[in-house]
This record gives sequence, structure tokens and C-alpha cells, in this order.
Amino acid sequence: MTHKNLAENIIEAVRNVIGPGPVSLHAPSFEGNELSYLKECLDSTFVSSVGKFVDQFELDLAEYTGAKYAISVVNGTAALQIALMLAGVQAGDEVLVPALTFVATANAVTYCGAIPHFVDSKTSTLGIDAQKLREYLVSFTTQKSDQCYNKISGQVIRALVPMHTFGHPSDLDELIAISHEFNIALVEDAAESLGSFYRGKHTGTFGLLGTLSFNGNKTITTGGGGAILTDNLELAQRAKHLTTTAKLKHPWEYRHDEIGFNYRMPNINAALGCAQLEQLPQKLQQKRELFQKYKMAFSKVQGVTLFSEPINSKSNYWLQTLLLDENQVDYRDSILSETNKSGLMTRPAWVLLNDLVPFKKFPCGDLKTAQSLSRRIINIPSSPSLLRSAE
Amino acid sequence: MTHKNLAENIIEAVRNVIGPGPVSLHAPSFEGNELSYLKECLDSTFVSSVGKFVDQFELDLAEYTGAKYAISVVNGTAALQIALMLAGVQAGDEVLVPALTFVATANAVTYCGAIPHFVDSKTSTLGIDAQKLREYLVSFTTQKSDQCYNKISGQVIRALVPMHTFGHPSDLDELIAISHEFNIALVEDAAESLGSFYRGKHTGTFGLLGTLSFNGNKTITTGGGGAILTDNLELAQRAKHLTTTAKLKHPWEYRHDEIGFNYRMPNINAALGCAQLEQLPQKLQQKRELFQKYKMAFSKVQGVTLFSEPINSKSNYWLQTLLLDENQVDYRDSILSETNKSGLMTRPAWVLLNDLVPFKKFPCGDLKTAQSLSRRIINIPSSPSLLRSAE
Repeated sequence: MTHKNLAENIIEAVRNVIGPGPVSLHAPSFEGNELSYLKECLDSTFVSSVGKFVDQFELDLAEYTGAKYAISVVNGTAALQIALMLAGVQAGDEVLVPALTFVATANAVTYCGAIPHFVDSKTSTLGIDAQKLREYLVSFTTQKSDQCYNKISGQVIRALVPMHTFGHPSDLDELIAISHEFNIALVEDAAESLGSFYRGKHTGTFGLLGTLSFNGNKTITTGGGGAILTDNLELAQRAKHLTTTAKLKHPWEYRHDEIGFNYRMPNINAALGCAQLEQLPQKLQQKRELFQKYKMAFSKVQGVTLFSEPINSKSNYWLQTLLLDENQVDYRDSILSETNKSGLMTRPAWVLLNDLVPFKKFPCGDLKTAQSLSRRIINIPSSPSLLRSAE
Repeated sequence: MTHKNLAENIIEAVRNVIGPGPVSLHAPSFEGNELSYLKECLDSTFVSSVGKFVDQFELDLAEYTGAKYAISVVNGTAALQIALMLAGVQAGDEVLVPALTFVATANAVTYCGAIPHFVDSKTSTLGIDAQKLREYLVSFTTQKSDQCYNKISGQVIRALVPMHTFGHPSDLDELIAISHEFNIALVEDAAESLGSFYRGKHTGTFGLLGTLSFNGNKTITTGGGGAILTDNLELAQRAKHLTTTAKLKHPWEYRHDEIGFNYRMPNINAALGCAQLEQLPQKLQQKRELFQKYKMAFSKVQGVTLFSEPINSKSNYWLQTLLLDENQVDYRDSILSETNKSGLMTRPAWVLLNDLVPFKKFPCGDLKTAQSLSRRIINIPSSPSLLRSAE
């Protein structure tokens, strides 16, 4: 620590990189064909459930991620709900999710009538600690008819949902191994990691299904939107069917063969997505450059570390992340307060989900590292356009 | 009947009104500030969860409908799910819905873990037959602690959901009386009836809550969208809270106090809604004129009647509706086939919900009229712009 306090040092380091003025945490930017595609929607009158941009966006997403199929939906939460249903999650099942994630991960589990079961994270990835999870599963589960049962609750552990925190890939090799070994379906919550790769393969394409989000605060946005990724044709077709009210194809008849959902992405939102996806490589480049500049700027700041992409990973650096040293955590709230007061929007990690009133009753393992991380994380301004405006 | 068959007579009557060329059932049109408002979203970078158009659209909707509060959401199905939850619908409860409605009405009930209980419609409104419902309730329910119990299933009948079919108001006086008398909450599914009034008051504002849809096929569209209407401040606040992940207000903390939903309407969709709502009066006028022209054209066609707005009602005439005479119902499919082949998009009523595989197991009363209507209804092209293009 210099003679200044940690909050002042952090503000100085960030300002050195991005210059003066009020800055949001992550603002979208529209520098391509957005208006032209929106105009095309209006001119064609196709703004809603049918339209060429929905099809195009799905093809573009599949091509970019390398998934065989991409199904666009109304948001990332809806994507995860449907992906879990398609992975076989039923009422009463347990689903393993990190305690350190946005609330949507666990909400989607409850929409299936299932039970979120919270597990710990590790410091090097900010995602699920696979080694600790393995030990946990060995101790409290048993296999019956190729299904994994929680010995305490008696429920089936049906799915495992790693979330790639702030865009940083979780330990996918280990999590896939656990999924196979314990007969638990792997469904990736890649809401934050469009543009993030693990061993050269896009996040969200390792599990049976993966899900993306295009909320306004994400690397690219459709206003609100999400997508389901899968390599399985049958699951892809079922995903499209379930998200479009399960209506059977017919020139005029309205017949639905199961209880479906109105979760399609409107054409006008997909139009925005097509234009945004064209600019993704450049946005990712800008975000990596921003990380490099922050790295330089924070190299001299004691008491805090800028989080770098994990081993074997190329991250989208969605939200740039500071980790406070353990002995600085008492300053977290004053740092958040000072930075926000100075016009730099910052935020802490989410309150751990098992600490929220609606989730207190659900099972959880030891969460020591997640508890530590939730006190140590501070996200700092991360928009891809920040560097350019500072130049 | 003339020497021509009924299909040919229908095609001739429609063509006399709207002229030649292929015509969809209901196409949106964008003739106002749509592009300008969309551009404003892009320029401001506010396309997503926050933005001035969301607030404006909610104020405009409240003002137009006369509801004290309007809460915009991602679609009409989501609106109804949340409205039912706010009306107290819980897992295991029964909810009275017409069998003759779009599948979303019953889907929303099941999302609450509740049971749709199908009731009959009447020919003069195409909505719930209130008199028949009263007799039904008298015979199979009982009151305990001011709650209405189904004597057969033992479940609470928690809500009654009239749907204003094709924009025609149901018998609201009678349905309100039943709601009070039997202690069943009234939640109106006004998805099809924006711009429809009963005794001078807007549909969707009679129940504890009401819901709207702005899907692409509706009178005005936001791409995909819906809204919840209510006069109750507490319910309005709860609706906003529940549809925005139940996050507590805080400058940086992410804390949620119940299991909420990601159901907010993005700003870019609300921008479209604001522009569309400005044009609603003119669209309604055009739709009434279209009805008048169809009325003249069909006055000479035997075997079929053009449906007129019910007594005490001013309807938006969302979908223009033919009712085949009972002795003509065998021709329905050939009429649908011939009209669609000739480039006039037409459609029948929905398959009755109790006849769909996923709903077969649920309770239903006698549905004689709904069964008859489902065989007799044919919707014909209804876009507000049709008249103008024929001129």
C-alpha cells in the first residue's frame, strides 16, 4: 500500500487506463448493421415470431460457437430452464450449481420443480471446484440403475451446471469426467462466456446442452435474449418445439402435443443479434486489450490482483475482475462506495445463492472458497469501447 | 346458397372487400415513429432492461386502458402466469378457463403448478358462458372459510380467467358477480382485446388483474411482449418485482428476496410499443371499417354469419370471424383449404384445450357450445391496413 488508501489506488489505476468521466460497468455499443437490420424488419413487417433474422442468428451462432445447433430464445434464464428439462431434470431432482453465480442459474432449476444443490468454487477459475465436487459426490452419493442418488435426501442428482464466471471457463475436463463417472448430465450455463474457449473449443459446447445470454450487459446484446446450444439433433428439435408452444406443424390447425413455452426470440431482437455478432471478434479484441492495460496499471497496486484467464482457456474477459487480498476484505464496501461515488461503476460478486432467503432451505456442500471469493471480488468497468474512448 | 359452393362464395365476398393478391390473417404495420424510436435506443445504448421507453410504454398503456398501473413483460403468457401467482394461485389449485382459447391461457395455469378446469363458452360472446358457469359452480362447489372448493377433487378453485375471444368482451357483469359470490379471483386474459371496451371500460381492467399481449399477430406489436394491468398498487409493485428477478434495490449488491422471473420487456421492444400505441386509434378505426365492409359483403352469403360485437361492448375486431351454420360444418376444412389455396389466409378456432393430449386429464364441465363453436369458426383476413390497400 502507498500512502493513499486502497480505494484511491484502485480509482487511480482504472482512471489511468480509461480516462476521466462517468463510466458504466458494461455498456453495449452499436457500430455495425444494427439500424439497417432493424429497418429491414419494419419494412418487411416481420418483427415477431417468424423472420429471416431468427434463422440467420441461429446459423451464425452455431457457426461461431461450433455447436451443431443453436436455438434462440427470449433470454438466458429461459434457455437454461429448457436445457435442464431436455437433460431430463424432473420435479424433485437435485441439480448441482455453484453457489457463486447469478440467481438465474438456480431459478431455472426451480422452474423445473427441481432442487438447486450448491457447490463450491475455486479461486483459479471462479467456477465449480471439480476436485472438491468429486470428493463430495464420492461421500454423499450412490449409484442405482445408472442414476446418481443423494444418500441423504434420497433424490436423483440429475444435472451438473457449471457457470463460466465473468467469462472465464470452468475446469471442463474434470467436470466432463465427473459427469460421465457419476451419471450426471452436464449442462453448461455459458450466459457470460460467449467468445470464451477452453482448449480451443467454445464454452457451452462441452455439455449435453449449453446456454447463452444476450442481455444488455453482456458482450453482445439482443436487448433481451438467449440461446440453447447442442450437438444433438433430437434435442435441438425438441428445444425449438418446446420454446414455440409445442405447436404441431399444420397450415391452419392449432394443436399442441405437450405443455410448451412462449420462449421464442422475436425477429427484431434477432436482427440486433445478427448485427452484434458481426462485431464480436473486434469487441473481444478490445476487451483483451483492456485487460492488458489494466494488468499494467494494477501491477503496482498492492492488496489487490487483477484476475487472469485460467490455464487452457481463452476468456472473453466479460467483466474485468479484481480479487482483494484476504486481509483487505474489510475495505470492500468502502472501495465499492468510493469508486461508484467517483463515477466508476463497480460491483461485488453476487450474494452467495445459499445465503438468499428463497434458497436457504436447499442443500449445499462446504462453500469455503465461494464465501471467500464473494468477499474478495470487485468488478470494474469492462466495456469494449472504453479503451477507444480513452485514446 | 347460390350455384357456387360456400368456399367460392366466401372467397368472392372477401375479395370484394380487400381486392386481389395474397393476404395474411393479420399483419402488423409500422407507419409512425417506430424507426425513429428504435434509432433512439441504439443512439442512447439503452436497448435492454432499463430505458425510457419501458417506463413510457407502461404509462401510455395505463393511460389508454384506464388501469392505474401497467407492467410491461416479455409476452402475454408470462403476464398471465405472474397475474395468476399474484391472485394467489398455488400448486394444486384449480383455475377456471374457457376450453375455447389459445393454449397460453391454460399453459400459464400449469406454470403455477395449478390445474386448468375447462368451462363452456356462449355463442353471443365467444367467451365463457356465465349463466352455465354459475349453475355448474352451484352444483359442484362448496364454500369453506371464504374459499371455493371443488366438491369432487377437494381442491380450491382459486381463479376464473375469462378470455375475450378475438377481441370480443365476455359477459363481464355476470363474471364479476360470480367472482364475488363464489370467492374466486377474476383475472382477465385480455391478450386479444387491446382496444376493446365493455360498458365503456377497457377489457383487462375489470378483474383483480388483467393481461395483454403484443405478439406480432396482435392489433399492435412489440415483436414479442405483454403487460399486466391492475388498479392495486401493492400488486403492481409485486408484479414489477417478480418480473425483474425479485432483486432488492441497492447501488451494487445482488440480493433477491424470492424466486423471481426474468420477464421484463426490453427497452427496444417497448420503443416499438410506444410508436405502435400512438397509431392504435387509427388501426381500430380501420378494423371497424373493415368489419362494416365485410358485413355488407357477407349479407348475401348464405350458410355463414359474420360475427358482430356483443351487446354492451365495443370490440377491437382483432380477428374477423365467420360462424358457419350448424348444417355447414362439414364444409369447414374444404373452406379452409380453398381459401388458403386462393391466397386468403384463414384459420379455424383452436382445437379445444381439453382435447389436447397434455390437457386431457384435467377437469371440464359440459362443453357443448364450445364444441359447436370450434367446428363453426373461421377467421378471415383482418389487418387494419387491408382496406387501404384495396382502395
